[in-house]
Amino acid sequence: MAHHGRLTGPAAYPAHVSTPVRAPGGFPVVGVIGGGQLARMCAGPATELGVTLSVLTDDPASSAAQVIPSAPVGAHTDMAAVRAFARECDVVTFDHEHVPQEILAALVEDGVTVHPSPGALLHAQDKLVMRRVLTDAGTPCPPWRAAGSREEVEAFAAEVGWPIVAKTPRGGYDGKGVLVAAAIEDLQEWLARADEQGEQLLLEAKVPFVRELAVLLARSPSGQAAAWPVVETVQTDGICTEVIAPAPGLSEESARAATLIGLDVAAELGVTGVMAVELFELADGSVLVHELAMRPHNSGHWSMDGAVTGQFEQHLRAVLDLPLGSPEARAGWTVMANVLGGEHEDLYPTYRHVMARDPGLRVHLYGKGVRPGRKIGHVTVCGEDLPALRERATHAADYIQGVITQ
Amino acid sequence: MAHHGRLTGPAAYPAHVSTPVRAPGGFPVVGVIGGGQLARMCAGPATELGVTLSVLTDDPASSAAQVIPSAPVGAHTDMAAVRAFARECDVVTFDHEHVPQEILAALVEDGVTVHPSPGALLHAQDKLVMRRVLTDAGTPCPPWRAAGSREEVEAFAAEVGWPIVAKTPRGGYDGKGVLVAAAIEDLQEWLARADEQGEQLLLEAKVPFVRELAVLLARSPSGQAAAWPVVETVQTDGICTEVIAPAPGLSEESARAATLIGLDVAAELGVTGVMAVELFELADGSVLVHELAMRPHNSGHWSMDGAVTGQFEQHLRAVLDLPLGSPEARAGWTVMANVLGGEHEDLYPTYRHVMARDPGLRVHLYGKGVRPGRKIGHVTVCGEDLPALRERATHAADYIQGVITQ
Repeated sequence: MAHHGRLTGPAAYPAHVSTPVRAPGGFPVVGVIGGGQLARMCAGPATELGVTLSVLTDDPASSAAQVIPSAPVGAHTDMAAVRAFARECDVVTFDHEHVPQEILAALVEDGVTVHPSPGALLHAQDKLVMRRVLTDAGTPCPPWRAAGSREEVEAFAAEVGWPIVAKTPRGGYDGKGVLVAAAIEDLQEWLARADEQGEQLLLEAKVPFVRELAVLLARSPSGQAAAWPVVETVQTDGICTEVIAPAPGLSEESARAATLIGLDVAAELGVTGVMAVELFELADGSVLVHELAMRPHNSGHWSMDGAVTGQFEQHLRAVLDLPLGSPEARAGWTVMANVLGGEHEDLYPTYRHVMARDPGLRVHLYGKGVRPGRKIGHVTVCGEDLPALRERATHAADYIQGVITQ
Repeated sequence: MAHHGRLTGPAAYPAHVSTPVRAPGGFPVVGVIGGGQLARMCAGPATELGVTLSVLTDDPASSAAQVIPSAPVGAHTDMAAVRAFARECDVVTFDHEHVPQEILAALVEDGVTVHPSPGALLHAQDKLVMRRVLTDAGTPCPPWRAAGSREEVEAFAAEVGWPIVAKTPRGGYDGKGVLVAAAIEDLQEWLARADEQGEQLLLEAKVPFVRELAVLLARSPSGQAAAWPVVETVQTDGICTEVIAPAPGLSEESARAATLIGLDVAAELGVTGVMAVELFELADGSVLVHELAMRPHNSGHWSMDGAVTGQFEQHLRAVLDLPLGSPEARAGWTVMANVLGGEHEDLYPTYRHVMARDPGLRVHLYGKGVRPGRKIGHVTVCGEDLPALRERATHAADYIQGVITQ
């Protein structure tokens, strides 16, 4: 049990930030570590559910801190700051997977309810651990190997053929921490760094996939689970740019198989909250697990507008062990396109333009400054005509970011 | 033009409340005067639109202040507080219609952009003004009369017959400020009070309506307007308890006529933002204007879940003169039921129960303490089977408030 009193003793929060104010009626406080857009997008659903949010943010003007009254400033790597933050919350969850295990362990020791649990979260923090556990459980994965030396890399490449995919087991996102190596020379630097840090690289065969899919689901501490329809994700330069829900042309059998993999992984790892399983679809319709995320995920943004229950509401319900909402789609198709930072910084005029062009467009912005390639928002359209929806979504995203001007 | 700098000089805000933080990219600050649930329900849409909200709240723990970081405390009747608040905002709008005209005039003089304008808002503040202007414009209204004496009341009753409906022109809501008088004696006290205050009463014929309808629309300063489907509103003891969208069995002709009345009234009065026109439907399918509200309205809560663009998002778009979003319905039927305060105060357990019973239910709570009859939340369901939807919505609302226990 977390304590509910106000902090006493040395002030862990800046004086201008208030601690969470609990709504009357027995409603809880959900603490989110990290102040990015995923925490931000919990704000609307929390308001409607009547639960109070609090975010531990490393920047008082972060995406989430702009819209959530209780936003103490502190680093997710600062033991004291995280423990003081957690003391005010009924449950603690995450905007990202980077909270160190020793801090998570301290929270558990303090009696804080943490979802997902440190033991589950480890599989989203360390890709080598994830591969080992999934392989042991019989979950289909690409051929993989842990390697710390030139010899180990060459032995793996001899088995699966060049090029191979190398990953740092920890800390990667949006294509960072991933290298496609055509020959051993491409990995010299990575091997040297891994050696320095006493770590191994994760090597994977470069799978000849036909497209990428994602299964998004929520699982509650009571074990209730709900999966959204399987989606297709479109990546450009390692960054997700478009999501189509449901995945076009996916057979019912493949959709069922993919969903079952997601549900099995969630149960096997004891995941609580929303989890995304990114998948490779092969030419024969079978799928392999690519990546795991234990939090709301870009592949699920479509659900905010396209499903009865969006992923941010569902995540809150799951970590609070509330009954889960229906993940059913609300339209034949929903297309989500990411708005990435481009050249121009004044988004308001381009945003006005896309609203005028398309009254059915759903616009979501994250309050973030523009940096090239940075995810600063997304747009969604729902309907029945898939080619038209894709054109509308990508046009709007491209126009807001300044890639096109008409 | 409002000034964008921080307040200097004597602090008008309590020290712990920060002034609004503008998001990068040229996005504006919308100020809402009043901290009730209507301001609160703007929070989610503002977050997604990337615009900053600021609320002037009379209570630091109000429904809206719980979820909006910038929530200076001050009364809507305090000239200095309202002016200091408005100085930080690009546009000022309202959670209620009670800001005095002299304060609104001062804002306009200060160069603040105010939507709806004081001149338009007057028609929602004073029912006698509203009746005069609508009647002059040829808008269908019940027979009405301004009366300050026994003789004037009796003359009106002689024309339309007892019982008559008496209203205080200002300050009424949810059935307050309305009296159905069967004879002159019922109005003695009201007449005495009106006389004391140098005011008149609004008298209206008690119209033999078959049901109540509402037209909800938004109109922007540029004159763009968008109307949602006409809804049926169900009142219990003068309080709206249920809304059905669209109004069942309403002929296309009646729906068109009602919508045109709404659009005409909005244009005639120069309304900006969301406006609700409550209507009486008569046996012949014609309609009469009952009440006006110039803000998001209870009859439009269904749109948050049931329309492409919900009323709170649309209100923000309208007052910012952004292009309006589509008001199209997302399902055949949407039913909204209000959750009213009942006997028990611990809502969290009953709320869990309704979520478990109905995963498709959309629950919205306002963070308000329970008082009998007080609007503390609402629930919505969307789908195709109207009788089932009505059962689901009213069961959930009744269960949360403790009227039923199974």
